[in-house]
Amino acid sequence: MESSEGLLGFETEGASRVAERIKPRTLKGFRDYLPQAMLAREQLIDTAREVFRRYGFAPIDTPALEYLEILTGKGGEETDKQLYKFQDHGGRWVGLRFDLTVPLARFAAQHFQQLGTPLKRYHIAPVWRGENTQRGRYREFLQCDFDTLGSESLTADIETVLVIHDLLRALGLEEFTIRVNNRRVLNGWLELLGLKDQATAVLRALDKLAKVGPEKVIQEMIQRTGATPHQAQEVLRLAQIQGPTDQVLRQAAELLSCSELGTQGVEELSQLVRAAQVAGVPPQRLCVDLSIARGLDYYTGTVYETFLVPLPQIGSVCSGGRYDNLVELYSPEHLPGVGASLGLDRLLAAMEELGLLPQGATPAQVLLVHFQTQDLEHYLQVASALRAQGVNVDLFPEPKRLEKQLKYADRRGFRFALILGPDELEQGCCQLKDLQQRSSRQFPLDELEQLAQFILQQCSQGVGAPSGKRL
Amino acid sequence: MESSEGLLGFETEGASRVAERIKPRTLKGFRDYLPQAMLAREQLIDTAREVFRRYGFAPIDTPALEYLEILTGKGGEETDKQLYKFQDHGGRWVGLRFDLTVPLARFAAQHFQQLGTPLKRYHIAPVWRGENTQRGRYREFLQCDFDTLGSESLTADIETVLVIHDLLRALGLEEFTIRVNNRRVLNGWLELLGLKDQATAVLRALDKLAKVGPEKVIQEMIQRTGATPHQAQEVLRLAQIQGPTDQVLRQAAELLSCSELGTQGVEELSQLVRAAQVAGVPPQRLCVDLSIARGLDYYTGTVYETFLVPLPQIGSVCSGGRYDNLVELYSPEHLPGVGASLGLDRLLAAMEELGLLPQGATPAQVLLVHFQTQDLEHYLQVASALRAQGVNVDLFPEPKRLEKQLKYADRRGFRFALILGPDELEQGCCQLKDLQQRSSRQFPLDELEQLAQFILQQCSQGVGAPSGKRL
Repeated sequence: MESSEGLLGFETEGASRVAERIKPRTLKGFRDYLPQAMLAREQLIDTAREVFRRYGFAPIDTPALEYLEILTGKGGEETDKQLYKFQDHGGRWVGLRFDLTVPLARFAAQHFQQLGTPLKRYHIAPVWRGENTQRGRYREFLQCDFDTLGSESLTADIETVLVIHDLLRALGLEEFTIRVNNRRVLNGWLELLGLKDQATAVLRALDKLAKVGPEKVIQEMIQRTGATPHQAQEVLRLAQIQGPTDQVLRQAAELLSCSELGTQGVEELSQLVRAAQVAGVPPQRLCVDLSIARGLDYYTGTVYETFLVPLPQIGSVCSGGRYDNLVELYSPEHLPGVGASLGLDRLLAAMEELGLLPQGATPAQVLLVHFQTQDLEHYLQVASALRAQGVNVDLFPEPKRLEKQLKYADRRGFRFALILGPDELEQGCCQLKDLQQRSSRQFPLDELEQLAQFILQQCSQGVGAPSGKRL
Repeated sequence: MESSEGLLGFETEGASRVAERIKPRTLKGFRDYLPQAMLAREQLIDTAREVFRRYGFAPIDTPALEYLEILTGKGGEETDKQLYKFQDHGGRWVGLRFDLTVPLARFAAQHFQQLGTPLKRYHIAPVWRGENTQRGRYREFLQCDFDTLGSESLTADIETVLVIHDLLRALGLEEFTIRVNNRRVLNGWLELLGLKDQATAVLRALDKLAKVGPEKVIQEMIQRTGATPHQAQEVLRLAQIQGPTDQVLRQAAELLSCSELGTQGVEELSQLVRAAQVAGVPPQRLCVDLSIARGLDYYTGTVYETFLVPLPQIGSVCSGGRYDNLVELYSPEHLPGVGASLGLDRLLAAMEELGLLPQGATPAQVLLVHFQTQDLEHYLQVASALRAQGVNVDLFPEPKRLEKQLKYADRRGFRFALILGPDELEQGCCQLKDLQQRSSRQFPLDELEQLAQFILQQCSQGVGAPSGKRL
């Protein structure tokens, strides 16, 4: 409970207000995270952070509110209806960030002299968009980005693949494919085809290939970019090269042999794939897919998308790419970079479907049953000893009927209930009930270390151990 | 990098806009967290979460934006100027939450039928207040609350003390005092003094005792509450009882012997102190302070404040109390509870002053030096092997001069640099430079496990190991 003095004040004196109650509800497109969902979210975020840190990425944070002009770029006319914007108390136009890329650009322009490069950062924070909620989209959602700024080296592109790979594995996902492409390959090809000036629109159309199929992509290219049917078909000829990676790269190299840019792109892709394999990425988890375009026009080199083999319909769970200059809106400096963004909501949905999420609504392994308050000090001593050994113990606060307490344990998904009734206390022991396996075991009270080890060991065994897993 | 398609779009085609750059800056009262500050913040939050979970508290989250009427309670007239509010795209009046208590009340009213009680939750999230920034206050700051809802048992009050105690110890703080009082003691005394109807105002005045001294408190009581000088002095007579806990409680019991409410309060305090000691809280860390009032009028039982002995001027770093009914604004149900809120900014400031924060701006223990890109695959293999052993390795992305790379390591606060130059590779070894102790050691490349263990062991020794500590 934190002071809200001067803001709301909870005036208990004016009891009249209670006559009219306010209906408790959240705004459309916004959601509460109940304990079970939040435990899953924390587990996912902890894993992501651990992997980012393993590669030397450091966390940063930026304000939720920014000057509107920072968010919209030059000129308010570009402001989209999706942006939450308003005037603050000082009459300044401000907005809630709608992604973590614009704040990163502002942050980098503002601080990179002080911080130096390369600047490897991760940022996990909510963003807000007043989107149409009908498509199952939320107006508030967490983003999770990592980027390496200030380096043009392909090493950073390679490590981006490694982070994605390690991250998904750390989450317990084994069957996935990181699909990579390189904008230089695509742009080199568009140059050869005489479509250089329409590159942005052509790639936006190509980006929809997996969703809408080749015919609609060709149609859009012809209608929106002025490409001829032949040009459009030629774009797809490159994009649709399929087969083992070596073969795809060889065919691409042949098509692009007259393009310096394209040849460079193919060479970068080859190096990337080889290096990733040397670093331990199995071949089936990384493939070159020349149809990956990414809709955004600021990508200039490697681009990434990541699909789960058992759940392709969920879409890419981690996407990103290399860009030439992040800060041009805010600084005359030149700051290239590469990075990717984790789709947390998609990953959570996928992990739920694959049974990889903790099932309980409690972070504790043990419910300590409360029989009679006169024994409270015994409960506290036992709880304290177990907690000191790393066991999470929820002491039921009141001497309710055993049945009710076990119902609470069941509802929350506790693995164990610890019984310390008058009989047990007299015998100097306690009874550990395994609520999952429906078994029971006695431990002497003077060997609580042993009890703690038993609990931790049981909870670390395999998935399905309710929640205890990561604690 | 996450898709901001349709919002900003980073149109590289319209290069003209670059002519006018936008000054990169944050709003007044808002701040960026650079890596070093953010690593400290993450360490603090991780520790808090670990302790909350140890006691069975589960995480929840709620939206940043809520219906304005939810935030302001019944009637907009109570809305304070500090609240960030605006109309959203659908014309709804909405606001940014200004604390985590109101959202908890709304959340509990909305979900507690589904979740059942006791409901033990923690919530760590930003809040926004358009405050005067001159007093060094921020307009965006993190709050960190934990509460037990749906129980009137003193057990929950006791465990609240234990959480505060374990939390501060887990942060490395050893010298602190949790000061407890009980509103029943104060209210019983005010009843006896005939000040029951002015209780709220009297306690608000008393709450300032430590800040402004007894004379000003008496003055305020007389002027604002209509208390007589004698009444005001009598209030202070109770509040200023000092000495060892037993003695304070005995004196309070005597003064309040004619008050049922007051006697109950003293009894609760006695039980609380005794139980906390049984559970392992040393007597010097917990004291009864009858002057602790807390300004908020919704507290009805135990109240808490926590002070650091070496830094009393920083104020309470963890405060809270017991309240009768959290949800009355939103539900006819009755939901009592008890909880406290951690002052993260104050704790970070204190820990910085006491040298308890990680000093580096990197989460990695090792910078792997990049000599020549033709050896990249060796670097990747070594990095991969070390990472698999739990070492955080930052591979420098480019073959810059060694001096520059070591400057980068120094600036970021890396403990180690790993040298894998052409000579070392030829000899099948690597050189580990300890940048802190200015020493160097060779390891054979076929014994990287040993190297990893050495690094982890060195970094876990004592405070001052830059950042590696918690990883």
